[in-house]
Amino acid sequence: MSLDFIFNPRSIAVVGATDSPVSAPGAPSTSFNAHTLIFLYTLLDWGYPGKVYPVNTKGDEVRGLKVYRSVRDIPGPVDYVICIIPADATPGLVQDCVAKGVKGLHLYTAGYAETGLADRAALQSELVSIARGSGLRIIGPNCMGVYRPGMGMTYGPNFPRESGNVAFISQSGSYTLLLVRAAAARGVRFSKVVSYGNASDLDEIDLLDYLADDAETEIIGAYIEGTRDGTGLARVLAKAASKKPTMIIKKGGTEAGKRGASTHTGAMAGDDAVWDSTLKQSGVIRVEDVEEMADLMTTFAFFPLPRARRAVLFGVGGGAGVRASDECEAGGLILPAIPEVMRAELGRSVTTAGTMLRNPVDPGHYARDWTAMMQILDGWEEADMLLWQIAPDIEALQSEVILQYINQMRYRTLQTFNSLSKPKAVIVQAVESDIGLQALIDTRKMCAESRVAFYPSAYRAARAISRYMEYRARHDPDRA
Amino acid sequence: MSLDFIFNPRSIAVVGATDSPVSAPGAPSTSFNAHTLIFLYTLLDWGYPGKVYPVNTKGDEVRGLKVYRSVRDIPGPVDYVICIIPADATPGLVQDCVAKGVKGLHLYTAGYAETGLADRAALQSELVSIARGSGLRIIGPNCMGVYRPGMGMTYGPNFPRESGNVAFISQSGSYTLLLVRAAAARGVRFSKVVSYGNASDLDEIDLLDYLADDAETEIIGAYIEGTRDGTGLARVLAKAASKKPTMIIKKGGTEAGKRGASTHTGAMAGDDAVWDSTLKQSGVIRVEDVEEMADLMTTFAFFPLPRARRAVLFGVGGGAGVRASDECEAGGLILPAIPEVMRAELGRSVTTAGTMLRNPVDPGHYARDWTAMMQILDGWEEADMLLWQIAPDIEALQSEVILQYINQMRYRTLQTFNSLSKPKAVIVQAVESDIGLQALIDTRKMCAESRVAFYPSAYRAARAISRYMEYRARHDPDRA
Repeated sequence: MSLDFIFNPRSIAVVGATDSPVSAPGAPSTSFNAHTLIFLYTLLDWGYPGKVYPVNTKGDEVRGLKVYRSVRDIPGPVDYVICIIPADATPGLVQDCVAKGVKGLHLYTAGYAETGLADRAALQSELVSIARGSGLRIIGPNCMGVYRPGMGMTYGPNFPRESGNVAFISQSGSYTLLLVRAAAARGVRFSKVVSYGNASDLDEIDLLDYLADDAETEIIGAYIEGTRDGTGLARVLAKAASKKPTMIIKKGGTEAGKRGASTHTGAMAGDDAVWDSTLKQSGVIRVEDVEEMADLMTTFAFFPLPRARRAVLFGVGGGAGVRASDECEAGGLILPAIPEVMRAELGRSVTTAGTMLRNPVDPGHYARDWTAMMQILDGWEEADMLLWQIAPDIEALQSEVILQYINQMRYRTLQTFNSLSKPKAVIVQAVESDIGLQALIDTRKMCAESRVAFYPSAYRAARAISRYMEYRARHDPDRA
Repeated sequence: MSLDFIFNPRSIAVVGATDSPVSAPGAPSTSFNAHTLIFLYTLLDWGYPGKVYPVNTKGDEVRGLKVYRSVRDIPGPVDYVICIIPADATPGLVQDCVAKGVKGLHLYTAGYAETGLADRAALQSELVSIARGSGLRIIGPNCMGVYRPGMGMTYGPNFPRESGNVAFISQSGSYTLLLVRAAAARGVRFSKVVSYGNASDLDEIDLLDYLADDAETEIIGAYIEGTRDGTGLARVLAKAASKKPTMIIKKGGTEAGKRGASTHTGAMAGDDAVWDSTLKQSGVIRVEDVEEMADLMTTFAFFPLPRARRAVLFGVGGGAGVRASDECEAGGLILPAIPEVMRAELGRSVTTAGTMLRNPVDPGHYARDWTAMMQILDGWEEADMLLWQIAPDIEALQSEVILQYINQMRYRTLQTFNSLSKPKAVIVQAVESDIGLQALIDTRKMCAESRVAFYPSAYRAARAISRYMEYRARHDPDRA
């Protein structure tokens, strides 16, 4: 079975599309219909190459396109339907889709099994029964659907428009928004992202099976709250992990989390120890949460494999250096002490007497030649990678001036990076202030554009690099 | 011995002050001298009420003030001197200070014991010997000195100008910048902050002893890399902790951290287990790092003591709710399940079928009446506190529109908070995107102004509230 009709549909109908704003008593007022914007305008704005059909019971026009009153009324073939109408009207829609020969139906609509109510669960089963055997496959209900930048399909109007090599699937729609944003801000780009919600028909097993074979996808991530088929999931995870790096966020470990997961997508969270051993056996990387997954995706994308775990930490600030050293070692890297001879060599570029040169290396603000210092460290045999940290919150003079100053340092450092042979990364360390957060945003953007791995803390950098090296050692023992 | 001359000096000389910019080959060019700006201009701009004297060997003027060529040349008495000249010139300065009858000397200058070089350590000892017995006490060297908003003294030009009830002392200057910024952004205000560096004379024991008795100070924090007198420190910590909440960041646990700490301020980091048991015995709260300390300061400042640990988590977003539930329980809070009857009551305000109402409670974007829902939860006997979470990164439509929308929700929620009886806090959950970070900054600012406890994650909220409750149970068993 191929899911090409989902990822490469020749035509898409959006059922429930309207230009009229929805208003609710407690809700903020807008001049647009949010769902229509998210699911229909984006197709037009992103240049989806197939035909686009708005459908609603009133007819008229949406964004200048003729509105059909039913999917059945659309003149040409319809491969894919996005549904944003209320749940009670969906059995009729599924019948229409079957009659029309639609191949994929994405139900954004919620209010089914996830409510925990028997009649809503029955409604969900009814939809699946109507579709069964017809060739129509259902995504959802209760999900965001498909982000596929190569086809101009998205539900995040501010997601990146360029394609990449990373796929992500998630039971939770929120998690796809969190993950895409966290990784995209650091330059990661996606092949296919699917929020599949209640998994009434198409589930994580179907999707992982497809992505394992998908030539466009080189890295796979997933957020899974629970499954109906543990054995099937273990098999498909092992298949995926044998072909490409595969990572999973598996949550719902606490009682409240399980209760939340069950209400959220109607899934059973299962026993955590069983999950853990299944994932280990299959070679899948289990990550803590979306941040760690974004860290690993960034590392796989932009950080060449180091020979070993010995890092040099370079950056202005004594207390920041002590802290980052601790974090690096807690995350699994080693900071070897710099020998006397090399300290003397580095010392020639330093103007302040109080600077630390033992690793961490603090060049001070007034170092004569950062480039020379970085080149010395790059040439050191005991170092396998170079981590440059910026700590904007430790600057006494924190203002526009410091943002400009950090910008100068960053520009010079990223230039110098081009001449260095070892893997290198940028860390913006220990930021809580408004100006510090602005420096983080600016630095992350420049790193993403330069395809340099960026991390928002030394711990996160060290942990991701360590796990990446473990993965490579296991899967490509010759390379590692 | 009183340290009043440090915190309430009648006159301050800044030695090394100049309007000429410093330039170094690798350093960014500026139109000002950064050290003069930080240590002299701030006194003038913040309205320090005493006399201010710039001193440098060239004479002339700085900011329109007459420059004296030596501390000895200043006509009136000088209580306090800030030194920003190179280390080699400091023995002469200390002699001048002794001759002039100066009482406090802050040596910002670095290049002493922290270098690990014997001749630099000897230079530091020489300064202390010159001062001994004269009544002159030295802060530093290698430190930022004093932030004392009540007197218009600061080294952070963007620190808050208002005073508060929190004191912080730190061997690391960076840590004072980090801590003040992290806590101030959330509304915490400070009585006295001291960065004391190498502690050649005045040390953490002197400072803690003073702050334990200081009427202006109600909460004490400290960052300590090491000490010369473990017994003395244990005694003064016990004294401080018996009088007011006292928290310590104690780092340097890994080998690289210890090496960094030793280079940084010349301190011996000591055995971690010994520290841990000392701190426990004295009733001091040991925190992980500056973020946790800022979380606790925020909690002590703005979060009334809950009866017990049962929290209701309220906010839009399914996946975000599951995640935050896990984090709350991992942090030590309990999320009791909401009973059927109350769910039905809450359900009357909800328009979307798929919303979660079991705790976490997801009102959905289009809830009819958030205020009514919050009031129902506030009245629930099984709940001891209400946590409202905003998750801007889970919004599909992430743009200026969502920032406005969050602003509306925030405004309405903070208004509603005024009518609720239970302790409540705001969490901005799981933010990595640029727009999400902007929402965090905006929300944090509004909470600080409203004196509502703000946390940047559910885990950090839960952990801080739990530790705060533990502290109260131990120190005020009748209240807790």
